[in-house]
Amino acid sequence: MEVDPADLVVPGGRGSAVVVECGQVIDIVNTFGSQVVDFWAFCRETPAEFLSMPHCRSVLEKLHFTRGDALYSNRRRKILEIVEDTSPGVHDSLLAACDVERYRLLGVHGYHANCADNLREALGPFGIALDSVPAPWNIFENVSVEGGRLEIRPPLSRAGDRVRLRALDDLVVVLSACPMDIVPTNGADCTPRDVAYRVQ
Amino acid sequence: MEVDPADLVVPGGRGSAVVVECGQVIDIVNTFGSQVVDFWAFCRETPAEFLSMPHCRSVLEKLHFTRGDALYSNRRRKILEIVEDTSPGVHDSLLAACDVERYRLLGVHGYHANCADNLREALGPFGIALDSVPAPWNIFENVSVEGGRLEIRPPLSRAGDRVRLRALDDLVVVLSACPMDIVPTNGADCTPRDVAYRVQ
Repeated sequence: MEVDPADLVVPGGRGSAVVVECGQVIDIVNTFGSQVVDFWAFCRETPAEFLSMPHCRSVLEKLHFTRGDALYSNRRRKILEIVEDTSPGVHDSLLAACDVERYRLLGVHGYHANCADNLREALGPFGIALDSVPAPWNIFENVSVEGGRLEIRPPLSRAGDRVRLRALDDLVVVLSACPMDIVPTNGADCTPRDVAYRVQ
Repeated sequence: MEVDPADLVVPGGRGSAVVVECGQVIDIVNTFGSQVVDFWAFCRETPAEFLSMPHCRSVLEKLHFTRGDALYSNRRRKILEIVEDTSPGVHDSLLAACDVERYRLLGVHGYHANCADNLREALGPFGIALDSVPAPWNIFENVSVEGGRLEIRPPLSRAGDRVRLRALDDLVVVLSACPMDIVPTNGADCTPRDVAYRVQ
């Protein structure tokens, strides 16, 4: 897919943070089709309030959030709305962000880029330090839930698929183009790739 | 069920905190059978490390944790082990703790006791203050997951059912006998009841 010159790029395996003001929308574009984007949102004025997967599941009473759904903070306040989703709508709300320990358990020796560190690094310039990494919304991540068993499968999204979210408060949004290259989170070829985003 | 005199009681709708040292076990007994217990565990020395539902799901690759499973912290460290479970093994890992906002959304005016405040109050004497309430392990809570839809149903547990957990680190454990009296979290009669626990 051709990237629009107005789009910003998150390089594969890296993270970015951006302010999305109340009423603005952010488009997250799966440029190559199979890249998972770990997504977080923190209230700009009070970052101890943030997008919370357990609260979204509790209020919405479902695992998969779709077009028209509001997304909730850890204070059960609507802080985002899913305005558009051109993908098959499969996004994970269950798994933790990958972190150094995840790769260690997968047998990696030494450092491996990971979404948790991407988050911390991206938040640095905003003066937000985290004691603990909130569970991300894993956009485009395809985790099957069959009989209570979870399995990470290649994404069902296609090149150019886009999720558009409207901010319902002033937010600091973080996107991490997940660096996973061992299990098929980012496709059968296990290769992290760029994604694009635009705020307007 | 007769309560053993050595057992401690969490009154229905209230919370308790207790230290469980590395190697000790804690029994959580559903005295009357249908009471949900919101469960948290914080590392005593470094309470920023705590039992984490998304990390448990990610490492164990399942929604329901059963006998023999270790339970993981937000640093993917094993901090508990399920030694015994005489209940049907249905415990929720998906929902947030009930909080003031939960009851407000359910139409309650004014204050309603809730698991999030029970947690904060119970942790006070241990000098642990929380910016955000981690998702609890909701012991005995029966949340059906069908086609990605979540529904709270009366517990499947019976009077006297017991979950025994072994601590793999020195922990501050918090139990909240969930105060929910509007939806059937705690049984079809929506009545919070006492539970018992013992550390040995």
